[in-house]
Parts: sequence; C-alpha cells; structure tokens
Amino acid sequence: MSAVYQLAARLPQKENTFIEISSPCGKTTIGEGFCTIIAGSCAVESREQYLELVQLLQPAGVHLLRGGIYKPRTSPYSFTGLGSEGLGILEEARKLSGLPVVSEVLDIRDLDRVCQVCDMVQIGSRNMQNFALLKEVGKFSKPVLLKRGLAATIEEWLGAAEYILMAGNQQVVLCERGIRTFEDMTRNTVDIGAVALVKELSHLPVIVDPSHATGRRSLVSPVARAAIAAGADGLMIEVHQNPDEALSDGKQSLTPEEFAPLAEQIKAMARFQGKSTDAVKYERAELSGEEHTI
Amino acid sequence: MSAVYQLAARLPQKENTFIEISSPCGKTTIGEGFCTIIAGSCAVESREQYLELVQLLQPAGVHLLRGGIYKPRTSPYSFTGLGSEGLGILEEARKLSGLPVVSEVLDIRDLDRVCQVCDMVQIGSRNMQNFALLKEVGKFSKPVLLKRGLAATIEEWLGAAEYILMAGNQQVVLCERGIRTFEDMTRNTVDIGAVALVKELSHLPVIVDPSHATGRRSLVSPVARAAIAAGADGLMIEVHQNPDEALSDGKQSLTPEEFAPLAEQIKAMARFQGKSTDAVKYERAELSGEEHTI
Amino acid sequence: MSAVYQLAARLPQKENTFIEISSPCGKTTIGEGFCTIIAGSCAVESREQYLELVQLLQPAGVHLLRGGIYKPRTSPYSFTGLGSEGLGILEEARKLSGLPVVSEVLDIRDLDRVCQVCDMVQIGSRNMQNFALLKEVGKFSKPVLLKRGLAATIEEWLGAAEYILMAGNQQVVLCERGIRTFEDMTRNTVDIGAVALVKELSHLPVIVDPSHATGRRSLVSPVARAAIAAGADGLMIEVHQNPDEALSDGKQSLTPEEFAPLAEQIKAMARFQGKSTDAVKYERAELSGEEHTI
Amino acid sequence: MSAVYQLAARLPQKENTFIEISSPCGKTTIGEGFCTIIAGSCAVESREQYLELVQLLQPAGVHLLRGGIYKPRTSPYSFTGLGSEGLGILEEARKLSGLPVVSEVLDIRDLDRVCQVCDMVQIGSRNMQNFALLKEVGKFSKPVLLKRGLAATIEEWLGAAEYILMAGNQQVVLCERGIRTFEDMTRNTVDIGAVALVKELSHLPVIVDPSHATGRRSLVSPVARAAIAAGADGLMIEVHQNPDEALSDGKQSLTPEEFAPLAEQIKAMARFQGKSTDAVKYERAELSGEEHTI
Repeated sequence: MSAVYQLAARLPQKENTFIEISSPCGKTTIGEGFCTIIAGSCAVESREQYLELVQLLQPAGVHLLRGGIYKPRTSPYSFTGLGSEGLGILEEARKLSGLPVVSEVLDIRDLDRVCQVCDMVQIGSRNMQNFALLKEVGKFSKPVLLKRGLAATIEEWLGAAEYILMAGNQQVVLCERGIRTFEDMTRNTVDIGAVALVKELSHLPVIVDPSHATGRRSLVSPVARAAIAAGADGLMIEVHQNPDEALSDGKQSLTPEEFAPLAEQIKAMARFQGKSTDAVKYERAELSGEEHTI
Repeated sequence: MSAVYQLAARLPQKENTFIEISSPCGKTTIGEGFCTIIAGSCAVESREQYLELVQLLQPAGVHLLRGGIYKPRTSPYSFTGLGSEGLGILEEARKLSGLPVVSEVLDIRDLDRVCQVCDMVQIGSRNMQNFALLKEVGKFSKPVLLKRGLAATIEEWLGAAEYILMAGNQQVVLCERGIRTFEDMTRNTVDIGAVALVKELSHLPVIVDPSHATGRRSLVSPVARAAIAAGADGLMIEVHQNPDEALSDGKQSLTPEEFAPLAEQIKAMARFQGKSTDAVKYERAELSGEEHTI
Repeated sequence: MSAVYQLAARLPQKENTFIEISSPCGKTTIGEGFCTIIAGSCAVESREQYLELVQLLQPAGVHLLRGGIYKPRTSPYSFTGLGSEGLGILEEARKLSGLPVVSEVLDIRDLDRVCQVCDMVQIGSRNMQNFALLKEVGKFSKPVLLKRGLAATIEEWLGAAEYILMAGNQQVVLCERGIRTFEDMTRNTVDIGAVALVKELSHLPVIVDPSHATGRRSLVSPVARAAIAAGADGLMIEVHQNPDEALSDGKQSLTPEEFAPLAEQIKAMARFQGKSTDAVKYERAELSGEEHTI
Repeated sequence: MSAVYQLAARLPQKENTFIEISSPCGKTTIGEGFCTIIAGSCAVESREQYLELVQLLQPAGVHLLRGGIYKPRTSPYSFTGLGSEGLGILEEARKLSGLPVVSEVLDIRDLDRVCQVCDMVQIGSRNMQNFALLKEVGKFSKPVLLKRGLAATIEEWLGAAEYILMAGNQQVVLCERGIRTFEDMTRNTVDIGAVALVKELSHLPVIVDPSHATGRRSLVSPVARAAIAAGADGLMIEVHQNPDEALSDGKQSLTPEEFAPLAEQIKAMARFQGKSTDAVKYERAELSGEEHTI
C-alpha cells in the first residue's frame, strides 16, 4: 500500500465514496454510476450577470452551479473576485434555482462564511498543497472539490486528499484540470490516463474540468466526452453569457446556447457508459420542470 | 495560415483525407467517419509467435496488423527486432489473414524492401524529425503512419507531416502516442486535447496508441474509449499472447483474450459516435467470415 | 512593461534592492555584489540536533541559518516538523551563534509568532501562489524568501513577488529551487537561465537552493558554483550531521565536514565574480572570530 | 552498472576520454582539464558571410569552427542549409583559419562526404535516437559531437552514445543544449545539473551550447560561465556578423564584437577552475599569432 495515501486508497473491502450534496430543492449525488455536471462562470461578476446566467443554465440540466468569488490570479492587478460581497449573490442564485453551489476558498479565514452559504467548497490548483487549508477544510462536514495542482503528480494529489480525509472529512471529489507541459497550443494538457488511474487507485469520485484543461472553447466538447468515456464521474464547465467580455477565462467559456447541446451530448455519452444522469433528486415540485429532470 | 504546415492545414475548400490501404483480401479505410483498429505485438519475435497471434487477433475484427521488425531501443543491448528476416514473416501473416500490415522503418536504406511487403510504413516517435527519412518516405506512394515525437509540439508534428506531403505522398495518418511529462505513474501522458485540436487544424486522419501512451495494461481500455470519444479515427493497440515474456513492452500489452472484449467496446463506442466500424471491405469471400465483418 | 509585475520590474531609474537582515550580532546583506550563504538542516529535528549543527556550521562562514519547523510534506504520515515548539530552538540557535535565522511559514495564523523570532520568513514552493499568505506576509516588515513554485513560470514567480511588494513589504528575495521536468535522475531541474533572466527583469536579489534543486549530494557543489557564476546573489544549502538519518531530505544533505570546503569554494568563486563574501557585518566582537569574517 | 550504457560508463579503472582533433594547423583537444570553445554561425549562409565571420572569430581564440550546411528545421519552408554546396566553403574556412570544423549530418548518405571535409561530425538533437545514423557514424574514425535530444533523459543520452561506442568509434563528446519544459521565456531549459551528473556517470567529455539552450542573446554569457563552473569541458556558441538578418537563430546569436569579451570571460573562468584554455596546439607558425595562443 502507498505510504502517502491510505484512507484514499481503493481497498477490496472498501466501497466507492458517494457524495450527497443537499440543496434547497433536494439532493445531488457525485460518485460511481452517476454523471454530475457542474457549470457556471469562472467568476461571479455582478448580481445581474450571475443570476441571469443561472436562469439560462437551469434548463440545460446542470446539477451544481459554480461561481468564483475569490479568484487566484497570477497578477495582483487582475480582477480577483467580488470577495465576501459575492456570497449574497451565490445565496440568491441557490434559492432562485434550487441548485447547490460550489465556490473556491483561498484563505482559511473565509472558510466559515463560505461553508454557511455554499454546498461544496473548492480547493484550487494553486492551493492543492496548502496544507493548512487542507487540514482546516477537513474539519468541516462540507463536501470538498479538490483540484489537481498545476504540476502535481498523481501521488501528490492523492496525498493532498489524504490530508482532508485524515482531518475527518470523508467527502472529497477529485478534479483533473490539466497539467503543465511543454505544449502551448492548449492552456494545459488534460491527463486523461490519470482519470482512469485515479479511479483504479482510489474510491473517491473523479471529475474533469475541460475548460481550464484546454483553454480553448472548441476543445471543451470533445474533451468532455472523452472524460466520461474514460470513466470520469462528472464534469465542471465554464459558461458565460458573453465570453468575450468575461473578466476571466473568456477564451475557454461557452455561451449558454453552446452549452445546452453539449450537456445533451454529455448526458447521452454518460447513459451509453451506463451512468445515471439523474444526479439531482428534486423534492420541491416547482423546481423540477420537465426540462429539468434530465 | 501557419507558416509551418500548409498542405496539412484544414482549409474551407479542402476535403478530409481518406487513406485506402489495399491488402490481399480487399481494402481498409482510415479517415473521418471510420474507426480503424490496428493491433499486434510490439515486435515480431518469431514466426511461430507472430503467426499464432495473428490468428488469434483476426476474429476480434482487427483492420490492420502491426508488427515491428526494426525496433528503436534506448539501449543497444535490448532486443532490436528480427530485421529484414522478419519481412518474410510479415508477408506470411498478411497472406494468412488477408489483413494489411504496418511496420516501422528506422533506416532510409530499408524503405524499399519494407514498402514491397508492407501496406503502410510507420515513422516512429524518435524519428519524427528525421527529415531525411521523412523526405524519402514522401517519394513512395505507400501510406505513412506518423507518430508524434516524444516531446513534439503539435506544430512540429504537423510540420513533420508537411515534409512528407511536400515530397509528394499525400497519404499520411497522424498517431498520438503520449507525450513526455513529469508524471511517472504512466509511461507517457496521452494528449487527448491534441487529438481534437489536430482534427480541427488539419484534414489528415488521427489515431491514438493507448498502449505506448499509458504503459499500463489497465489503462488501455479507458484511454481507447476516450480517444474515440474525442474524435480519433482509430486506435493502435499492442497485443501479445504472453505479455510477461514479451521481448518488449510487455507491461502494456493485452492478451488476445483481453483484447477481444475491448475491440467490442471500441466498436460500440465508435458506432455511438456515428463512425463506421466496417473499415475493411472484403473482396475475397473466404476471408470474410461472420466474425470478421465487424 | 509586464502587466503582471510592475513593482518587481527592473526600471532604468530603479536601484537594485538590498535586503538588510538584523541579527543579535550585527547585519547580514543580501543583494547585488554580495554572496550570502544560508545553511542548516531541512528540519529542526530536536534541540540537541539543531544546536549542535549550528555550532558546526558557524566556523564555515555561514551568513544565515535555515531550519524548518513547519514542513510541507506530500504525505500526512511524514514528519511535518516540530511546529511552534521549534521556535524556542530557533531562538536559542540565533543567540548562540549570533546569526540570523530563516524559517518557512505554511499557515497565516503562525506568521505573527514566527516573525517575532525569525529574521526572515520563507514562503515555500507549494505556497508560491497561496495569495492569502503572500498578502499577509506583505503586511510585515520582515524580509521574505520567496521560493519559485514547483512548476511556476518566471512570470508567475515575479507575479507572486508583486503581491508581497504591493502589500507594502519591499524586502523580497527570490529563490530558484529547481523546476519539475521529465528528467528523473535529479529531483528537479535547476533553471540556471532563469537566475540570469530574473536578475535582468527584476531588481530583487536572487539566490539558488542547489540541494532541493538536484536532490543529490554530489551535485550540490557544481550547481552551487554554477549559480554564483550565473549571477546569483547567494545560496541556500542543506547540511545535516547525519544525512542518512535525517527526517527529511537526507539524500541531498551534506555533512558539516563536506560543507566546509564547499563554502570555501563558493566564496572563492564569488570573489572571482567580484562579489563580496563579507555579507555579515559583526557588531559584537566576541562573535567575529577570524574564521568568521570570511 | 547501468544496463543501458556500459562502454560510456565511468569505471574505477577507466580513464577520462580525450578527443584529439587534427586540423590543418595542429591539434585541438576536448576533455577533462581543457576548456574548448566552438563558435560560428548556426548556418553557413554564403561563402562571403562565412569566411568573413571566420576571420572575425579567429582573434578571439576559438578552438573549433561550427557551421551548419544541413539544417533540421520544423518547417520545410524554412532555410534548410546550403547542403553539399556548403562543404567547399567549410573546406576553405578550415584552410584559411587553420582551425578544425564541425558540422551536422542529417542523412546517412551524406556521412562520407562530410567526413572527408570536416574534423568532427555533429549528431543533432532531433537525431539523437536516429539509431541508423548513430550506428553508421560509429563506423567512422571521426570525432562525434552528440547533442542531447529535445526531451531526452540522461539515460537515453548515454544510451545513444553507447550505440556509437559499440560500433567502434570511441571519440564521442556529449553536448547539453537545453531540454524542453513548460517555461517559455527561454527557448529551452539548460540542465546544468545534468552536466555535472553526466561527468560523474561517464568518462566522456561534456560541453554546453548556451545559445540554443536559452535562445536569448543576453543569457549566453551567464550560462556559459555557469557551464564551466559546473564542470563542462567546453562550449559551443553561435556568432553571426548580423544577427538580425541571420537565416536562423538570430535572436540567440552574438556579434563577433560581443563574442570577443565573452571568450575572455570564459577563458578566465576556465583558468579559475583549473582548466587549460590552450586547447589548440599550433604546428604551423604563421597561424599562431599572439592573439591566437589563448
């Protein structure tokens, strides 16, 4: 057995981990046998922008909303998110749509507040080995989306998950988002083999972020299909009403119009692979319109 | 337009390239809309080994046989193939199965002989920028399988294809076989985004070699499915009767028993993606048994 | 001008940054024209171990002591340092030797305490883009040693420095510690060109850590010399009394006996390059023995 | 002992390899204890260009001239050298200067002709694992300059040298020219640790090409000094009368005026490291002017 990850390791007697995420309207599941789609804009840019987007996304059958309010940026002069001001917007989006919300935390001191509003907490690539943050998020009972580091080995990635599991939080979802290589025609290189390998080594669910991984709008769709075909348990996709004016990651964002057929493709591929795309169980009738039961 | 590749570039007026490979029993096609499966052992180890393998592979619906007789090896002390002695074995395998054969050439001086026997010539990763070899193979009318270099950029890969096209040979198939990165749990990192991007940039067919790309038997199947899902036009897979005793690449080789269900999976995925898996058109009745019309 | 780093950029009218580090016995300088040697064990393992080591290091002409009490480790099961208990040991080492001390901080909540004891704070590779930590350390008036991330580009590294400078702290020293590449015979690949390029792009001092960069004891000496030859303003070197029993990084640690002649070599190379090796100005006579004025 | 390289391995009883290169005017040595400087333009562009350059280089104390007549280029539309027409120019340069000449061979069929004119044959990065070429050059008694592949591991590099040694040619000089990494501010990343490590693992001489390795004129000088400091036995540097109009690699070429003081710096560093810079032994009096005895 690996000396680095033990709680994260797949063992004969250990069952696959299923993450159940509660939201105002019911429950979303992430894990083996399901295909869970997370979508939203890279950043929450304003109340108008985000709430409009959410309403455009809902009919496409999204299971979880993403929306960054603390953005890690290479340059301190870039837009770094609305900060805690954005929390209210996320809360409103959640109520409006009935969908659960995931958002990234950069600073230990924001964890409490974010956990009160969001249904899942994201640890981003740049913080994959921010061990203080990992241990702290491990003390919460909130599901965690752990992105692979920019150039993290599979072992380091599972080691990072282990820090969270060890601290008591068993609800960890791994997210492959491309690794850094010499190839510069794509923003990163999606490690599709790692998706299959991590599923083999660990009982934790694994999803893929084809938007950050490729950095090119036209590649999101083929890479999303490939991810599901390789065994991924879900996808996280960037969508923006007006990608060309997005405050971050416009080049890789889809419009809601482009996203809708992609979501159909993904769900068809998931069903072909024997996965349920009914990852949301609605309890409040008014929210589960026909277009919504995916 | 790229200054590096012009003949290889996808242009509005330019149709996709289809490669037709003639064999004793009919024709095999590689190109958009087809899914072509190439299989065989990394090396032709002996007459007995290879002919037995070919007979085991045929029922699985392979379209093209691979078998290396000139093997590029890091160490000069490793098995470097049977050399020209192996040509007779490839010829026999071709007659026996009716299937076309592809084999790698390392030395310009072997091109003539190999082209007389084989239906397709492979330029391996280590020779992707052996420009003398590229120009020479460009003078033949034989289809070429051009593997991506160990750490070649997409632009360099298309530039290498351009050398062949410029010399007059238009029948080039590109093969993604994993690139070199920091991750060492897999032999290489499959660049699945590059498969989709190259299909976008060029009219040439693209296939994937999940065996070399991952170096792990258990990953061949998920990566093969992912490749087809991302738009690849085919696959090249290593199969060996006895992987543990293979003279090269045993760790990533499947047995014929493991390969048969994988071939079924691949074909099902291809059909789901709207691709024909009937890439071989048999003209000789005795060779197209029911199990063979895939 | 780069949109990512502006305060860190070398401008015609801007002078080189010199860092002055106060210690019980006087002042240590890091910056253009000086060669500053930082040495110590990767981790402070115990009071006995560390104080003994410090006494062995002092005669070799070390300018700054390193000693980790919070250790970022891939596995949560590895030794992760003595934590705040180690602070007292660092304080004692500082008094005993008269030398300033640098130690890594992983958690924002430890910054205050560490800054009270240490003369310089290290931000490690895994936290190079822990922006919350960068901004916080930027509020202190303590010199910062900012290591390059595992796979950070030069632009990202300077962007990280910019976060600290923007927050008000101008005392930043950059530390190249090798980047992650495909080569696995060395732990990392020292980017010697980056040392020279960063000196060209920025006015901040740059030092090199040949121990982490190579991960091999025998390479520390040639890479240390190369670093000074390329223009580095100093070195950070791991030394341990008993490398084979070190709790971390033993394979790359030198014994004090091996370190002494290396320090001589480094100082000779520095003088050859026109750098002063007299980076410590002693104010307390009893601490500046002859062997110490380097 | 490594299974990959045995003849190339440093063994207790085995002496360092010294390469003696004969030229019209005497002998040049490459090996431990010497610092050998190879310089010239990337390509021989015309008779006028190259002969003028050689006359400008000679006073700077160059030991060997480089000049490419067969150029491996990513794009077939780039200038690929004068080809065999350039051989006459190299011959003239050799006679005019009395200095030996090294030039790259891409095609087995050119080996004979190039070996008749040149004093050393270069195998370039793209052909490091062109095993047919390696075995063929191993049959000649001509010294070989073997560049490291674009992304070759140290083991693969030594394995490539082994192919030449095994074929009978013991005169191999290894050349580090930067490896491919994610960093794009430099053309490649110089692996300075590899220089020291290869000197430890093998008895073959190792030189560094700071021009291709960095791709930036301003970095040639610091990296050249670093290479000698790390133990390299020499350097290969690109010089061009008019870098901005060079047909290849202009951005990294120095003018003869920039090269002259660099050559002085290199020689000073070499002497500081205990190396002789008197690597040319002149036998013809008229060629060894005072400025030439370096």
